[in-house]
Amino acid sequence: MSKALGYAALSPTTPLAPLSFERRALRPDDVSIEIQYCGVCHSDLHQARNDWGIAVYPLVPGHEIVGRVVAVGSQVQKYAVGDRVGVGCMVDSCQHCDACHADLEQYCLEGPTMTYATPDRVDGSNTMGGYSDSIVVSENFVVRIPDGLDPANAAPILCAGITTYSPLKHYGVKPGDKVGILGMGGLGHMGIKFAKALGAEVTLFTRSASKAAEGRRQGADHVIVSTDAEQMKAAAETFDFLLDTIPVPHDLNPYLETLRFDGVHILVGLIQPVDPALHAANLVLKRRVLAGSLIGGIKETQEVLDFCAEHDITCDIEMLDIKNINEAFERMHAGDVKYRFVIDMATLKA
Amino acid sequence: MSKALGYAALSPTTPLAPLSFERRALRPDDVSIEIQYCGVCHSDLHQARNDWGIAVYPLVPGHEIVGRVVAVGSQVQKYAVGDRVGVGCMVDSCQHCDACHADLEQYCLEGPTMTYATPDRVDGSNTMGGYSDSIVVSENFVVRIPDGLDPANAAPILCAGITTYSPLKHYGVKPGDKVGILGMGGLGHMGIKFAKALGAEVTLFTRSASKAAEGRRQGADHVIVSTDAEQMKAAAETFDFLLDTIPVPHDLNPYLETLRFDGVHILVGLIQPVDPALHAANLVLKRRVLAGSLIGGIKETQEVLDFCAEHDITCDIEMLDIKNINEAFERMHAGDVKYRFVIDMATLKA
Repeated sequence: MSKALGYAALSPTTPLAPLSFERRALRPDDVSIEIQYCGVCHSDLHQARNDWGIAVYPLVPGHEIVGRVVAVGSQVQKYAVGDRVGVGCMVDSCQHCDACHADLEQYCLEGPTMTYATPDRVDGSNTMGGYSDSIVVSENFVVRIPDGLDPANAAPILCAGITTYSPLKHYGVKPGDKVGILGMGGLGHMGIKFAKALGAEVTLFTRSASKAAEGRRQGADHVIVSTDAEQMKAAAETFDFLLDTIPVPHDLNPYLETLRFDGVHILVGLIQPVDPALHAANLVLKRRVLAGSLIGGIKETQEVLDFCAEHDITCDIEMLDIKNINEAFERMHAGDVKYRFVIDMATLKA
Repeated sequence: MSKALGYAALSPTTPLAPLSFERRALRPDDVSIEIQYCGVCHSDLHQARNDWGIAVYPLVPGHEIVGRVVAVGSQVQKYAVGDRVGVGCMVDSCQHCDACHADLEQYCLEGPTMTYATPDRVDGSNTMGGYSDSIVVSENFVVRIPDGLDPANAAPILCAGITTYSPLKHYGVKPGDKVGILGMGGLGHMGIKFAKALGAEVTLFTRSASKAAEGRRQGADHVIVSTDAEQMKAAAETFDFLLDTIPVPHDLNPYLETLRFDGVHILVGLIQPVDPALHAANLVLKRRVLAGSLIGGIKETQEVLDFCAEHDITCDIEMLDIKNINEAFERMHAGDVKYRFVIDMATLKA
């Protein structure tokens, strides 16, 4: 066991505060990582406040983790002390089901072990995330941060990046495809970059005309103001794919109408009931598809990191002193961040 | 022009009654068909009563048409007098858009011309359907009824058949796949037969335990009573595909939960808002897909007829005297038909 320092929620209603806790002794396949940066994901806030009813306290959030390997277990093969590595949303899975065999550990039939607030598969202890100075993880759930990537900017690729990259790859987005990105937060701005890098013609859908210039700066070829019925009507039946990063209930129907026949609307941000109601005619009459996608597997997480290095893609971030995490939560909740807070873990020691 | 006799609705509130009208003179690519049988589809009732707000009166329903060619236009190449042929839901399309080029005329970007209650693309006249003694249709929208098929039982393949066959083919249902069929009406019982013929392990979902034996008689390997929460729970994450033929709003969520990761729920019967609300988590957390599908193209309609002949598949029908069509509408509305009424057009002359 080794001592760790982190920031934790002790209940749904108390702010995050410093917490000393212990990381497990290295198992044979474990690597110990000194955490340098950790992205702040909206789900961290949801979990800290138990919005989904599955929180376990004390709860140390954080699943966009970048650091250096400082020790390795006796049977570790892929990593050595000094390697720059990352840990995303998962730290374990059954590794023998159909999903795990397909490198889709996020859909593990027995349920993946999430990076925080989930029982460890071996000792049942509550997993603790990346708002901390260290973490111990099986090498099978560790990825390599390519040399060409800035480690701080790379951190959000572990969740915001893979979440948007994976469905674009799964549905085979290719040069010439018309892709709409719904929403431009942490996920949406990454979606623009990936869709562009895959060769698509990219349109940002945003509620606010004021975001048009910023959308183009991020790489969008076009911007549609979704509250403008005329613009939406003009886009009818023109898109091949919509990547929907909007994390709150919204009317899917006007967006679906912008899809061609066989078009695919991919939800990655919404995990609530669809309200207003989805109209089935918008699927049936044009053979359209409404799909969902959840993060990505470990192999594909490595792939997206390599893709980012190759295409010079990183996340736009605002560096954060961990002592300001509660204020950052409030700003994130209000949408006031471009586009991801990343905790500089050096501030933990200050 | 030639005289035709049919049954028509003259308003949303009046029963179908005999109507004399005219069929157009043959264009170069037209065939004239003496109608022998016409299936009775639930959409005929919806249209007669203007449930969708798009009816045009007088309205002669019917788009599951089987008959004999009695005359051909000067440039007709595929059909000759005496051929047994069929006409389904469409009689024309633009024939030059991406959808038409992909043999998906039902998704024609300019809108297909439906078999009834749609303006003809050439002269603007209101199309009249198959509850009549004859029809004149471009040979491009005529299919051949294979010799091995009983013509009366084959009629519903032109709509109920292609509607269920097309999505099973589109999504690549193959031997060993676990397919659930939701509902066992005209569409559902055909879905069971097709899924079995494609080699799938087929489960009928039905609200009524009393339908279990009948479901097995139709070919289902298993039956799940959807109102039994225990049975639904036991089926969690086991299906690859669900073919949902239920034509009224129903809760999709318990069915979605029976799909494996990457499973596909295909709507073919619902064209209303989804109520109760679809829960997005049921898509996102397992990368499931909710899809729609509408009938099928002309080429695939020929394919399904040939497939039915090859696999000895026909629709279970109840033969109908056209004079009883209004009573049949009531019985169909009440679900009291196994599984499709087919009008014997000889009764029109009686």
